[in-house]
Amino acid sequence: MSGNTFGKLFTVTTFGESHGLALGCIVDGCPPGLALCEADIQAELDRRKPGQSRYTTQRREADEVKILSGVFEGKTTGTPIGMVIENTDQRSKDYSNIKDQFRPAHADYTYMHKYGVRDYRGGGRSSARETAMRVAAGTVAKKYLQDFLGIKVRGYLSQLGPIAIESVDWTQVDQNPFFCPDVSKVPEMEAYMQALNKEGNSIGAKITVVAEGVPPGLGEPVFDRLDADLAHGLMSINAVKGVEIGAGFDAVAQKGTEHRDELTPAGFLSNHAGGILGGISSGQDIVAHIALKPTSSLHIPGRSIDVNGDAVEVITKGRHDPCVGIRATPIAEAMMAIVLMDHFLRQRGQNGGVVHNMPNITSR
Amino acid sequence: MSGNTFGKLFTVTTFGESHGLALGCIVDGCPPGLALCEADIQAELDRRKPGQSRYTTQRREADEVKILSGVFEGKTTGTPIGMVIENTDQRSKDYSNIKDQFRPAHADYTYMHKYGVRDYRGGGRSSARETAMRVAAGTVAKKYLQDFLGIKVRGYLSQLGPIAIESVDWTQVDQNPFFCPDVSKVPEMEAYMQALNKEGNSIGAKITVVAEGVPPGLGEPVFDRLDADLAHGLMSINAVKGVEIGAGFDAVAQKGTEHRDELTPAGFLSNHAGGILGGISSGQDIVAHIALKPTSSLHIPGRSIDVNGDAVEVITKGRHDPCVGIRATPIAEAMMAIVLMDHFLRQRGQNGGVVHNMPNITSR
Amino acid sequence: MSGNTFGKLFTVTTFGESHGLALGCIVDGCPPGLALCEADIQAELDRRKPGQSRYTTQRREADEVKILSGVFEGKTTGTPIGMVIENTDQRSKDYSNIKDQFRPAHADYTYMHKYGVRDYRGGGRSSARETAMRVAAGTVAKKYLQDFLGIKVRGYLSQLGPIAIESVDWTQVDQNPFFCPDVSKVPEMEAYMQALNKEGNSIGAKITVVAEGVPPGLGEPVFDRLDADLAHGLMSINAVKGVEIGAGFDAVAQKGTEHRDELTPAGFLSNHAGGILGGISSGQDIVAHIALKPTSSLHIPGRSIDVNGDAVEVITKGRHDPCVGIRATPIAEAMMAIVLMDHFLRQRGQNGGVVHNMPNITSR
Amino acid sequence: MSGNTFGKLFTVTTFGESHGLALGCIVDGCPPGLALCEADIQAELDRRKPGQSRYTTQRREADEVKILSGVFEGKTTGTPIGMVIENTDQRSKDYSNIKDQFRPAHADYTYMHKYGVRDYRGGGRSSARETAMRVAAGTVAKKYLQDFLGIKVRGYLSQLGPIAIESVDWTQVDQNPFFCPDVSKVPEMEAYMQALNKEGNSIGAKITVVAEGVPPGLGEPVFDRLDADLAHGLMSINAVKGVEIGAGFDAVAQKGTEHRDELTPAGFLSNHAGGILGGISSGQDIVAHIALKPTSSLHIPGRSIDVNGDAVEVITKGRHDPCVGIRATPIAEAMMAIVLMDHFLRQRGQNGGVVHNMPNITSR
Repeated sequence: MSGNTFGKLFTVTTFGESHGLALGCIVDGCPPGLALCEADIQAELDRRKPGQSRYTTQRREADEVKILSGVFEGKTTGTPIGMVIENTDQRSKDYSNIKDQFRPAHADYTYMHKYGVRDYRGGGRSSARETAMRVAAGTVAKKYLQDFLGIKVRGYLSQLGPIAIESVDWTQVDQNPFFCPDVSKVPEMEAYMQALNKEGNSIGAKITVVAEGVPPGLGEPVFDRLDADLAHGLMSINAVKGVEIGAGFDAVAQKGTEHRDELTPAGFLSNHAGGILGGISSGQDIVAHIALKPTSSLHIPGRSIDVNGDAVEVITKGRHDPCVGIRATPIAEAMMAIVLMDHFLRQRGQNGGVVHNMPNITSR
Repeated sequence: MSGNTFGKLFTVTTFGESHGLALGCIVDGCPPGLALCEADIQAELDRRKPGQSRYTTQRREADEVKILSGVFEGKTTGTPIGMVIENTDQRSKDYSNIKDQFRPAHADYTYMHKYGVRDYRGGGRSSARETAMRVAAGTVAKKYLQDFLGIKVRGYLSQLGPIAIESVDWTQVDQNPFFCPDVSKVPEMEAYMQALNKEGNSIGAKITVVAEGVPPGLGEPVFDRLDADLAHGLMSINAVKGVEIGAGFDAVAQKGTEHRDELTPAGFLSNHAGGILGGISSGQDIVAHIALKPTSSLHIPGRSIDVNGDAVEVITKGRHDPCVGIRATPIAEAMMAIVLMDHFLRQRGQNGGVVHNMPNITSR
Repeated sequence: MSGNTFGKLFTVTTFGESHGLALGCIVDGCPPGLALCEADIQAELDRRKPGQSRYTTQRREADEVKILSGVFEGKTTGTPIGMVIENTDQRSKDYSNIKDQFRPAHADYTYMHKYGVRDYRGGGRSSARETAMRVAAGTVAKKYLQDFLGIKVRGYLSQLGPIAIESVDWTQVDQNPFFCPDVSKVPEMEAYMQALNKEGNSIGAKITVVAEGVPPGLGEPVFDRLDADLAHGLMSINAVKGVEIGAGFDAVAQKGTEHRDELTPAGFLSNHAGGILGGISSGQDIVAHIALKPTSSLHIPGRSIDVNGDAVEVITKGRHDPCVGIRATPIAEAMMAIVLMDHFLRQRGQNGGVVHNMPNITSR
Repeated sequence: MSGNTFGKLFTVTTFGESHGLALGCIVDGCPPGLALCEADIQAELDRRKPGQSRYTTQRREADEVKILSGVFEGKTTGTPIGMVIENTDQRSKDYSNIKDQFRPAHADYTYMHKYGVRDYRGGGRSSARETAMRVAAGTVAKKYLQDFLGIKVRGYLSQLGPIAIESVDWTQVDQNPFFCPDVSKVPEMEAYMQALNKEGNSIGAKITVVAEGVPPGLGEPVFDRLDADLAHGLMSINAVKGVEIGAGFDAVAQKGTEHRDELTPAGFLSNHAGGILGGISSGQDIVAHIALKPTSSLHIPGRSIDVNGDAVEVITKGRHDPCVGIRATPIAEAMMAIVLMDHFLRQRGQNGGVVHNMPNITSR
């Protein structure tokens, strides 16, 4: 592959630039028989869609998805599912002033080095707009996992800049513009974002994604461990700089007696492992955390260079997310669902998908 | 692939169990003309080899590598390089007492669920012994990167349990049994490990790996970003629970003005990005950190179950590393080198490998 | 991958059913800088388009291609190229009578077995209509090969049922509806097809594809030999039952002295190898032949069964090609171009693409 | 991958040169629970082994295989199976005279162009000796297919130069040195080969491979059709110049009414399709034919050039097969078994491996 395909048996290939005609993807390997319609996809896309609160970019893409193939009479047929979203709100002239400049911390610079050319309109292929198709493709995975296997994949914002959540109430996540599961922190986040917008600055964030109901046995050691593929998928999301499974970096200072999740006939007693042992799911919840950096497109001037190597001062005028992390929850869910779906099919292929004759460990 | 192959153009496939006859690997895609001999590989294997200090496992594997193919008259020929290491110090009876038990936090449990069978001797395929072949394969990558491209990949222990280093002196790394670059911390680490051994416990660690001299342009967005492939490779190492690029999780609380690495005609002014922007190398140092969990094989009893689901108390008697992180530096270097090598070849394939007509940014 | 992606560095992924909303593809891995517009693709699509003579199906698809991404200001950018063709002339009711029947020799039966469901309209995914996107993708490869490397890929009909050509005049190929390079055979072919249409029967054909100007060194032994990948690509075309490289099956009865292509300082003296030795291009013309079976959709009744296993008599009423081979020339060219493009990039990646310091052998 | 790996879920990676220290392979993706020992592999290797009759090369390799991993207590564990064969009968000096020459029709020339270097001893990696590991890996596939699915893969020599067989008696195949199923042709073949040896010449051959008991549903359209992957695998065997499925090139002159295999409730009435429709197995026997060219290493001088481009006369002195086709039957069986195994796992992964609720068609 050349970089735009993800997965082995359940594969997702995407195309599309921020300001091109359309974005699209091909989901290949979805088993036949899954009930699927555009409204299923649209619901998830709408969660990610920009312009829904004043804390995200004010671009107003309709983001209407069309399913072009692979579904017949309301069900998947096993053939590839083609989907497209037309780009509608393109204001390319917003970008003409940075055409010859490199925004600090932006992919402008590296794309130019790599390809010798770049579609500077809205970041082109490097734009987070690309992740819309990940959400579309991820919805297919999510729905299959839910409908056929009872696996639920969902996420939340666990930290916004300096504000860390203290409790998780899943019912709150979709009730506020931050995907924040701790309703007590929402006013603080609102105030923080307003001050940030005034300042013209941006901020990082942390997202947590959890999969419940995953059977033991998913993951293909040694290189395609479940955690390794999750790390691959999650780190491939724009702006992500770190991935943790379970205890993550806290494990550095943990002793073995503290970190190990003891088992009893009634189940595991803790989940520092994040549901993965030796690269294979243990039957506990899969838990991952990701760190997202602050957006590089700021209204505050920064030092940079232009294509001639001369010093310039860069200000980005386009409409940008002051915190890309806010809209990243559905994207992270999508990537986790795609990885789990792929590994479910791989496990079923190689090992028959049988849950072997083993003691039943049900706790988390 | 079925999990035991890594890479696309520079591929590494490994086999071997802890207590089987031998470990081996095939390195496919190494360009012809690289000077390579067994001594090159052996030198790196010796850095990882157990039994070299009292802070690592006391197993004494000779770990002598044989190159079986792909090298002719001292140079690689472009054909696959087959390598093997015979296992010599196998005390399988050490494991007979845990044959029907699952060590808490160990892959025992998940391998049994996945495959319905397991080679319980020394952890079988899930043993960190498998990583010897990663080091062997990684040495080929490292040497090519160094000899042909002037890229240097090296790492160090950045934290041992509660003890974080405060400075980096590369010349110290190979002068102490911890790969610790801060000589002032070594006595503290020695004392910590002695206490830990007495206690029969284990501890986590953090490793940092750095690649210097990487040209801009490596990485294939959107899914095969350089950072995503690094995350895949590094997370696939035994016991790793977290991966960071550059600022990593520190980015969560950083503002855009703080995180962004400004550019001047003389170069970048900082490196929070860890040398990767938009998934593509920027020409700065590539910097990654990994978190390793404490070993699960402890001399302190823990609650678990056996294959019948009955409660048991488990004590591991075999010879184990109290801190797997200590020997992980060469392994992390190997995985980073393999990823860079693969992406160098991919970039050369797709984009001709040309460094385009761009301003020359040389600082880190 | 799950079957709908072809290639390693230059990859083509397709979607679309005969009577769905649209067909589409993603070409990933095309290097930046190739001049490309819709007219380039359209010209090749028009060569394959149905309804152009009375010897092919009378469906009249406009087959208008849209490029949705990957091209900026008239040139490829190195990012994935998304393309779609909307389906316009869909008469699904033509198929309602075979909804529960299996046409003999048709994929109806096997799709139903594999997926448990099928989109029976026009053969769904198994329709040769899918090959339109191969032609679209192949045009990108063909144009790159021609513009940057001077490689020309072209083909012709070498046999129509019992009528074999006797000479090759490339200038004639696009001057008649059969892609026949031997103008003296055209009237015979016309008469044959008219009789066949009257009969309601179909016929097989043989296509020859040739690539000129291919440098030596393409092909990755041992499994991804150039000839093996060509065989894969060509056999994946609908209705193909055989693939030959160079002498092909004639080699069975050849002696070594007869088959071997001797070399002199002025070049090779013959080309029984079809331009490939040991799986690697030799610098001679690459020559491949394919056998296409007669269409299974006939107006002459045939014995078959229905979905209940009961005996039925099947007559296909839709509009079908009496000889699928006639329109297969552009498709075969496309697949050869895609394979060569992929191997050009792989060779450049792994071996630097250098033509080594070797005697220059220029003849064919 | 870089060319030395075959398969997606059941993958085979090989290494080794004709005159290197050893040949080896890694079989990844074999499900756990298959009874497997070295004697199983050895039996198949012995069928392919040189020096068994005066009609094959007189090299006398012991070809003793060692299983190094992946098997525990007599059964596969699901982890990668490493195998090696040491090279013992190496007479490298036989080759010193052709060190700087290119044998006409040999991979010498193309390897030198591709890699800029070659291991000239015995053809290095391009030697048919490489196929020993294919047979070893193929035996794992063959045994799984037989033991778990009742699929039998076997082949025979269907033509030796001008001598075509007229009948197939499977019990005869292993009773003569030619794998000839028509005992009446054996004396003719013996006489032909003796004359050929006297002449110092070589000859082509045709091999037929058949898989019985294959369930319907294997194959992943559109690119990874079962026939396309078979063509890939079979064409990747040394010296193969053509691959046919079922009727193959005979289909060119067949009418639709003649070619189509009609169905009745009692089964198919013929098998021109060779068991594959639309790229998916139909439940009939899978039938493939391959054409092998005559060996290029002859005792009769031929015109060629040396590394300086100067004209030379080449005579090969080493011990070579006058007809590589004779020993190719086990190799072709191996490749077909590997392809079927891979597709069985893929079908089980993507579609659950269910045989859907379909009429049972049992005839061939």
